[in-house]
Formats: sequence, C-alpha cells, structure tokens
Amino acid sequence: MRIVTEIENISLKRSVDAGTEEQRKSVIDIIKNVKRNGDQALIEYTKKWDGANLSSLLVREDEIAAAYDNVEKDMISIIKEAAANIKEYHQKQLKTSWDFTQENGSILGQRILPLDSVGVYVPGGTAAYPSSVLMNVIPAIVAGVDRIVMVSPPSENGTLPHAVLVAADIAGVKEIYKVGGAQAIAALAYGTESIENVDKIVGPGNIFVALAKREVFGDVAIDMIAGPSEIAIIADETAIAKEIAADLLSQAEHDERASSVLVTTSRKLAEEVSNEVEIQLRDLPRKEIAKKSVDQYGLIVVVKTLEEAVAVINTIAPEHLEIITENPSDILGNIRHAGSIFLGRYSSEPVGDYFAGTNHVLPTNGTARFSNPLNVDDFQKKSSVIQYSEAAFRENAHKIAKFARLEGLEAHARAIEARDL
Amino acid sequence: MRIVTEIENISLKRSVDAGTEEQRKSVIDIIKNVKRNGDQALIEYTKKWDGANLSSLLVREDEIAAAYDNVEKDMISIIKEAAANIKEYHQKQLKTSWDFTQENGSILGQRILPLDSVGVYVPGGTAAYPSSVLMNVIPAIVAGVDRIVMVSPPSENGTLPHAVLVAADIAGVKEIYKVGGAQAIAALAYGTESIENVDKIVGPGNIFVALAKREVFGDVAIDMIAGPSEIAIIADETAIAKEIAADLLSQAEHDERASSVLVTTSRKLAEEVSNEVEIQLRDLPRKEIAKKSVDQYGLIVVVKTLEEAVAVINTIAPEHLEIITENPSDILGNIRHAGSIFLGRYSSEPVGDYFAGTNHVLPTNGTARFSNPLNVDDFQKKSSVIQYSEAAFRENAHKIAKFARLEGLEAHARAIEARDL
Repeated sequence: MRIVTEIENISLKRSVDAGTEEQRKSVIDIIKNVKRNGDQALIEYTKKWDGANLSSLLVREDEIAAAYDNVEKDMISIIKEAAANIKEYHQKQLKTSWDFTQENGSILGQRILPLDSVGVYVPGGTAAYPSSVLMNVIPAIVAGVDRIVMVSPPSENGTLPHAVLVAADIAGVKEIYKVGGAQAIAALAYGTESIENVDKIVGPGNIFVALAKREVFGDVAIDMIAGPSEIAIIADETAIAKEIAADLLSQAEHDERASSVLVTTSRKLAEEVSNEVEIQLRDLPRKEIAKKSVDQYGLIVVVKTLEEAVAVINTIAPEHLEIITENPSDILGNIRHAGSIFLGRYSSEPVGDYFAGTNHVLPTNGTARFSNPLNVDDFQKKSSVIQYSEAAFRENAHKIAKFARLEGLEAHARAIEARDL
Repeated sequence: MRIVTEIENISLKRSVDAGTEEQRKSVIDIIKNVKRNGDQALIEYTKKWDGANLSSLLVREDEIAAAYDNVEKDMISIIKEAAANIKEYHQKQLKTSWDFTQENGSILGQRILPLDSVGVYVPGGTAAYPSSVLMNVIPAIVAGVDRIVMVSPPSENGTLPHAVLVAADIAGVKEIYKVGGAQAIAALAYGTESIENVDKIVGPGNIFVALAKREVFGDVAIDMIAGPSEIAIIADETAIAKEIAADLLSQAEHDERASSVLVTTSRKLAEEVSNEVEIQLRDLPRKEIAKKSVDQYGLIVVVKTLEEAVAVINTIAPEHLEIITENPSDILGNIRHAGSIFLGRYSSEPVGDYFAGTNHVLPTNGTARFSNPLNVDDFQKKSSVIQYSEAAFRENAHKIAKFARLEGLEAHARAIEARDL
C-alpha cells in the first residue's frame, strides 16, 4: 500500500455513478409501465430480467418455513442474537411526543409518530445480505411502523435466498415480494394490484434501483443513495500490524472502488501494515476486488501527532473510523465527522457490521459531515402542535398582525383580527 | 367556494415545477462558472440580474446598524419576542449524545454534534420575509452550528431589506452576503474567495434556486424543496364562519397555487364560510392571487362525522391543520399526517407563522406523510460509537466470523480472527 506523509488534499471522494441517459430513460419507461399495467408489468419484467416465471409475487408462509429448514440451526441463533442486539441499541433512539404549557396557558408540543408503511429493497444474487435485512428493517420495527414490505429479485427458479428470508422473518417482516430492479421501486412508490404503495423506500441496489429511487423521490421518501464503502483507521505504535491490515482488507473486499486508509503516527507500523496487506491479499477469495481497491483507493498516511491524524479524519469524514491507539477515547472528543466510530482493537469493523447492535447503513463519500447512520428517526415523522390560549391570543394578537403587515400579508393580519378582541 | 360531499379522491397534490431543460442548463452553467471564477462570477451575475454594482458582497456592520435605525422600535421588539419564542420551542428538541454499558463491558453510544456550517437562502423582493429568517436560522443556532451564512439578492441600490437584516442579526447570523439565485447556491456549496463553503443549505427560493439546490445535493445537504402552501381546517357547528373564512384566505393570499380546504360536519357553516370568503375577498390587497387560489384549489367538504373529517385529513396530509371544534383535542390522537396542527379558535394559523414558537417551514404537497417541520435535528448529525470489550469479543468472535462467511465475505471473518483469541 502506498505510504505518504503529505496531509494536504487527502479526500476519499469518488464520483458517484449517476447512470447513463439510456439507463435513465429505461427507468422512466419501467416506472410508467408499472403505473399503467401493475402486476402484469412486474411479472413480465421478472421473467425478462430475472428469468423467473411467477404467477404470484408474494412469498408464501411455507416458503418461510422451508427457509428455516435450510439454514443451519447455529446460524439461525446467531441471526437472532444479532437482531436482538440491533433492537436493543435502536430502542435507545426512540423519541416520543412531548408538550409544554406556558405561563399564559398555551400548550406547544411535538407529536412523533411512526411512518405508516416502509418498503425495504434487498438486492439479489451475491449481494443479498441477511445482515442488511436486519439493519434496514429493525429500526423501522422499533419506530413502530405498522407495515414493512420487503422486495427482492428472485433467482431463476423463483426463490429468494433462505438466509434472507430467515433474517426478514426474525426482523419482523410480514410481507415479502419476489420482485427487484426499477420495477420493484415503482411498485413500492405507486402500488399495483398486489403491492400497496408505501411512504418511504430504503435499502441498497444497483444503478437501476438508485435511478428509480431518485425518480420517485418526492412522491415517497427515500434513504440516501449510498456510494462505495470506506474505512479509515487511526493507529499508533501500540497497534498490531496484521490486525490493522486485516481490517483494511475487510473493507477493500466489498468493492473495487472501496477505500481503506490508515493514518498513523508510527512509520514502523505503516511499513509493517503495507507488507501485511500484500501478504494477506494473496489468498483472499475476493483478492482481485480487494487488490484493485487497495491499489486505487488505499492509502497509508504517516503523521507527526494524533492531532494531525484527527485533522486528516475530519477532512475526509469517513464512513467507518477505527481508533486503535493506547487511549482511543482521548481523541474521540475531537472527531467531528465519521459515520460509525470503533474504539480499540476489539472493535474491529465487522463487529459493527454484523453484531454489536449499531447500524451498518452509514453515510459514505464524505457525507458523514452532514448525514447520519440509518436510525429510528428515519422511520418516524413529526408534527408541531399549537394550542394557543385566549389569554395568549389577546396579549399577542396585535403583534402578530403587525408582523404580518410588515411582510405585506394583509389576509394574515385580518385572520387574527377576525377574532373579536 | 366550491362545496362537495364526496370524500373519495380528495387530494391537495399539485405538480411541482421541475423547471425547463433550458433553466436546468443555465443553472449548470452558472454553477460551473462560479466554481471556476469565484467572486468575480458572483459580482457579474449580481450586476446582470439584480442590477447592483457591488465591489464587496459581505454586509458590513454599519449596514446592520443602519437597518436597526430604519425599523420601527415596536417592530424590533416584536421580532425579538418572536425570536425568543422560537428559541424556547426549539430548545426542547435538542438531542444530546448518549451511551450505555452492557453487562460484558462493551459500550455502545451515539454522538450527536451540530453541523459545522449552514447556509440560509433568503429570497429577494417581496418574498424577503423576516419571519423566514428567524424560522430557518434559529433551529441552527439552537443546534449549536458554529457558522451560519445568509445569502440574499440585493436590490438595485445594493442593499438588503432593513427588516431582514434586523431579523438576521436578532437570530444570531454573523455573516451575510448580497448574492442570490443559483450563483449564491453554488458559492455556498463550493466556496469562493470570500464565501467559504458550507455543509448544508436551507431556505426557499425561486425555480433557479430550487434547481441549483438539486444540482449540488450530495456534495452538501439541502432541506426539502417546498411546494405551494396549504391549509386544511376541520370545523363543527361551533365554529364562526368569518374566522374560518379569514384563515382560509390567509393561506390563499400566498400563491395562486396555494390550497385552502375546509372539512366540516355542518352544512350551515359550509354555506356561511363560502359566502364569507366571497365577501372578505373583495377588499383584500392580494385579492387576485387569493381568488385564483380559492377558485382552483379551494374546497369545502361536508362530512357526516368528525371521524370522516379525520379520514379526509389523513388522506391529504396537509401542511397546516386547524381543528376548530368544540373539543379539538378529542380528535388530535387520530390525526396521522399534518405538518403543524393548530387547536381551537385562538390558534389561527398566523399565530404559528409568526409568533408562537413552532416552525413555519413545513412539509407541503402531501409530504407530511413522511417528512417533518424544519427542526433542530436538521442541523445536527449523528455518529455511532462502539467500544467492544475483550470479554464481548472473545464470547462473540466466532459468531461474527460465521455470519461474515455466510455472506461470502471472508476478509471480514479474517479481520475478526486476526485478533489472537
């Protein structure tokens, strides 16, 4: 891995695939067709692109039962334990309605309610991750969302992966459809005969899914469109090179465009990690992906002080940040921008990806400056409540009318004055 | 106003102005030019479109002082009181970081920090509303945002409205630039010599501003792109027609495409309100706008029961909802979708637009189903924190590695196993 000591202009920003004009047109056509022809369009697209000949899209209860029979018992209990951990962490995020009464008797408040319905997209093939099912569904369950609909493209034989079905069932999904791509997003946004439309769509997908989410945005809410994944690690001389190298590679194996960065005060560690990465790469199953990622977007930065290391991190605002130093929490307070922060050598990133309870859907590509890990707030919505008292009204009516007239909004002033004072 | 009794298919949804291809191209050119030529581009555009010949864009302290001299003392104290009310309400929304320690010694938490910097767009001309300045700035101040930058297009003589400057100063803005349009959005997103870039841009604007916000979205965060305004009122036979009519018109005067809807159990009230609207329209200064709005998007729905009224409201998800019935809070619990809810005859909508303390930046066009009033959360961001204990790691390492292998992510499993267990 490349080692540098220059800390100016370090950025993890990679261009986001915005799709071609042809792809965008194709997505618009698909959405129109689904709006017009409903289930028939979904069934035709599923035959055309997924090769599956379905008469009904809904996953049946016997398919869920069969999925349980086809996943190792041990694995099922690990998924259950992960789900329980994720639920515990996310329950701490749950907000409830509040109000307060002012001296003049007015009551102001905020009502906080779950969304009515949410759609969760789960990619097909090798990207069908049961852990992603847990991470996208459980915050919605904790928020109290009544209806959670999962969609995912089936394989040619018309099935979804067993582990995905098991994870969905454990997470609490009651409604799963075998449909993917832009057509699934269109169905979730506008509804068909068999799939009722939802208020928000979350979950990752390929470029067609991403483009479709952009198109329907506004008619329904969507989550962020995720970029390639990133890890940054701050380490000092107490860190162990093979652990750091393994953590960097766990990110690199995701995607050729994933980015893995080590920022260290130790030149010795830098060189050891660089060697270790080469060694560990050799027999990784996904070594071709990981090698391209490391070569293009991997970097080791040697800095003079941990303060400099923190400054680098705050510039790049990484999705994942590990702090593997003698006293990780000493510098935590100065970290301003990072999606998820892992403290100490036992907080290796996969601990959070799968099990500890925090969410693994995180802001990428520098957006940790202004956006959040997927969380319960994403599945709640707020309303303001004002119950103005007669006393408050009598006291303030003329001020409100005057303010309205300052802005040239006479009908606003007259609405106040229409009340006999 | 039109009176109907049919409650199926009532919707306030109006198409959102997506701009023409020509407008979009123009916006892309402007952004490129500002990226390349910085302040010079801003000064040229400001001359070309606003007719103002400026050498410096920053509003000087003496201009703020002069603004105070040009706003009535009474008005200044009303703005201050409104600002204090808005601050009080929004302070109740402030979230703080938290963590919890598990039995195995692991600590999980969420860090909640203010955004570093926020840009607030304030439209020019008659749409330069001091109340909007308060509503957009104060939640950011309460969140603890360090740098709040306001931009607004100047008039031909190179000035901004006095009341806007006073409101900005009262709200706590320290940095104001005389620049508007797509060029101002580009400057906020990418920075120029005199305007440092920000992390998030909020505030309303014309179609060029809206298109520019869409273009820069992703590089910075933006707020929602607002549609035309709406009010819905639930009223029973205890409501007073002239008050209801005045409240409907206060919405209608905003915009020809604004929508005002009364849902009532009283046919008598429906007819009285319909008449009152005609009468009150006659001498409204903005009667042409208000009349077009009422004719096109105004509606009175007569329902049999308050339950039916609630159902209509939940279908349309209005931006503003007034409940003017004998016991407004009786039905509050059944309202699922509304941006801001006003209870009782003393909670006329302008009370919330200007003074009570709740925010007047609200979800429009049915988006109250899934989005929120502007609030303090919009100016904070979250990071997850995991400090896994050695005990927790030893207990769970094999489960995490097994989960990773289920997903075919071997490097994830090896990262766990790289720790000597």
